[in-house]
Amino acid sequence: MNYFSSSFKLGILGGGQLGKMMLYDTRKYDIQTNVIDPNPEAPSKFACNFFEQGDLMDYETVLQFGRKVDVLTFEIEGVNIEALEQLEKEGKKVYPQAAVLRKIQDKGVQKQFYSEHHIPTSPFTVYQEKDDLTEALVRKEWEYPFVWKSCTGGYDGNGVSIIRSEEDLIPVPDVPCIAEKMIPFKNELAVIVARNPVGEVKTYPVVEMEFHPEANQVEYVICPARIDSAVAKKARELAVKVSEAFEHVGLLAVEMFQTQDDKVLVNEVAPRPHNSGHYSIEASYTNQFEQHIRAILDLPLGDTESKVGGVMVNLVGDESHEGQVKYQNIEKIMKMPGVTPHIYGKKQTRPFRKMGHVTIVHRDINKARKIAEDVKKEIKVISR
Amino acid sequence: MNYFSSSFKLGILGGGQLGKMMLYDTRKYDIQTNVIDPNPEAPSKFACNFFEQGDLMDYETVLQFGRKVDVLTFEIEGVNIEALEQLEKEGKKVYPQAAVLRKIQDKGVQKQFYSEHHIPTSPFTVYQEKDDLTEALVRKEWEYPFVWKSCTGGYDGNGVSIIRSEEDLIPVPDVPCIAEKMIPFKNELAVIVARNPVGEVKTYPVVEMEFHPEANQVEYVICPARIDSAVAKKARELAVKVSEAFEHVGLLAVEMFQTQDDKVLVNEVAPRPHNSGHYSIEASYTNQFEQHIRAILDLPLGDTESKVGGVMVNLVGDESHEGQVKYQNIEKIMKMPGVTPHIYGKKQTRPFRKMGHVTIVHRDINKARKIAEDVKKEIKVISR
Repeated sequence: MNYFSSSFKLGILGGGQLGKMMLYDTRKYDIQTNVIDPNPEAPSKFACNFFEQGDLMDYETVLQFGRKVDVLTFEIEGVNIEALEQLEKEGKKVYPQAAVLRKIQDKGVQKQFYSEHHIPTSPFTVYQEKDDLTEALVRKEWEYPFVWKSCTGGYDGNGVSIIRSEEDLIPVPDVPCIAEKMIPFKNELAVIVARNPVGEVKTYPVVEMEFHPEANQVEYVICPARIDSAVAKKARELAVKVSEAFEHVGLLAVEMFQTQDDKVLVNEVAPRPHNSGHYSIEASYTNQFEQHIRAILDLPLGDTESKVGGVMVNLVGDESHEGQVKYQNIEKIMKMPGVTPHIYGKKQTRPFRKMGHVTIVHRDINKARKIAEDVKKEIKVISR
Repeated sequence: MNYFSSSFKLGILGGGQLGKMMLYDTRKYDIQTNVIDPNPEAPSKFACNFFEQGDLMDYETVLQFGRKVDVLTFEIEGVNIEALEQLEKEGKKVYPQAAVLRKIQDKGVQKQFYSEHHIPTSPFTVYQEKDDLTEALVRKEWEYPFVWKSCTGGYDGNGVSIIRSEEDLIPVPDVPCIAEKMIPFKNELAVIVARNPVGEVKTYPVVEMEFHPEANQVEYVICPARIDSAVAKKARELAVKVSEAFEHVGLLAVEMFQTQDDKVLVNEVAPRPHNSGHYSIEASYTNQFEQHIRAILDLPLGDTESKVGGVMVNLVGDESHEGQVKYQNIEKIMKMPGVTPHIYGKKQTRPFRKMGHVTIVHRDINKARKIAEDVKKEIKVISR
């Protein structure tokens, strides 16, 4: 297959920041892209060859979009799976495959998949209705605190609540959900796995995540994770096991907990480039977006190791600002060594909205982490 | 000034591969761009916010284009300078400045500038007509071989000839030219200098260039140059001296000769991102395109040092192929560690046409150089 400067077309469902960053690499390879997103001002509107506005959950829209391209991928899980299945029946290459997305889109199904494949994960039960969960609580099947997760539609901390008492359950919507044992973990870790159609598999180094206590969004992503090498090895092996169970093509970001006794449990996965891999643009030999493209086009996978240590800081909207965005003190952080801001291109800021990220690289990961703190102190995403 | 996700507009004259690579970084910063190029299918057609077809040498076209943007830059020297001067008079920021381009666009003027500023360069004489040069030869003012250069319009080896005998002069056109003493050099070197409006100056490490013997195009660019550190220091200092003489804003690529007795002479300069800096995308803390944008927008300059060693190989059209391009064996080179192909997006190949480049990075520059040889052996730019 000839992809480079040819008539080959890659379709991407979703035109957010992940799509935007993927387009740096399709442009680098001169691979033609069609992009579709419901937002007419989506970050990926530019740099693709053809942009179309449309509803990603609409069967007919996704079907018609997919028929016009040679390979179809997505940068968001919220897409119409039936359309992907129909496209596959018609012989279209959809990567990651519809079957993979089916196992992931619903968190209940995802957890059950781990159980079936003997993949360590925290204990859980799936409930179809809120009443079922309430009854389980009456029967004392759960101890407080536990984690409540909506089976579908959750992202970036939405659709996830920590239930510490009966009262915390009141605002929770009546949707299919899972209750999950709360794991007192030492670290949240993630490993990105790349896999191509011929089954070549590569893992990125383990990254360590720190969450913002209120927004429940990642605050620092640190690569390599500052953990014991035996735990890192275990995490990479587990990520490969998960990857091989799914038999996905493309990237799979595997989020994990390192427990107090150094067990590694799978929390959840995302079948696409991931926030925890953004550091790779500056730090890795092959960044995650290029790797995703290599994987889905059945090209050889690139080197996943790092040139330098990397720390990523999310740029989220300040909680007291809403309106036309301004990146206060961005000039100050650009003076710091090894600092690269990424601005996603959303014109309006809102409290905790993901507006961009900053990567800090340094040969010494501890120095990178220190500079990252300075970055966080200086930069603010406010309105004008 | 607020550049990020704002209504600020950067104008770029020229939409070739340099502009295309610059757009990766304007997209990263969400800086709006207008691009103009005579070719309606220019590589920068995508990824800018607004593309327009137009003649870069036409006064009115450049003037009207410039009036619509806040800061104007260029990725090619062949633009109408009078229009840039008029725009500056109207208060527009043009970086690099029209006065810098005036001193560079004509190679005779450029050489005279070096003489006036006591910048070491090879001995030369400017001739307004071919007859003047012929008469100088009759008077034995030049010994064979010497170098003939057209004062204007030359690039990538066009407009440059080595004159070994009277006969070699026959095909040379009757245009203003310079005759230049041929320097038996040890190495061709280059240093990229960045300078912003407040006068902050940073140099990139010295790179070493190897030319293809027939096409007279760069074959390998190696960073860091494998030269004595005293010579490297001298080259960087000379580059700063050149930069300060021009008082340019933006990048200035300074090409130099290292003579047999380790003197460093300036050959010529380019006031823009340069082929000799492409390695920086993968190898440097701040790549040359981001650096150019930082400089012309009066942002702090980034770190110019390297994370890893880098070698760049140009992908030029095979001499026996013309037509729709095909990158033969590109999958094979993508298997090699640290190898990144860049495809510029030109659909038609021609003998020696610059179609792309490949960067090879490695902690050990000698290993990178070895892999670069393997890359050159495998990949071929042919027609389908």
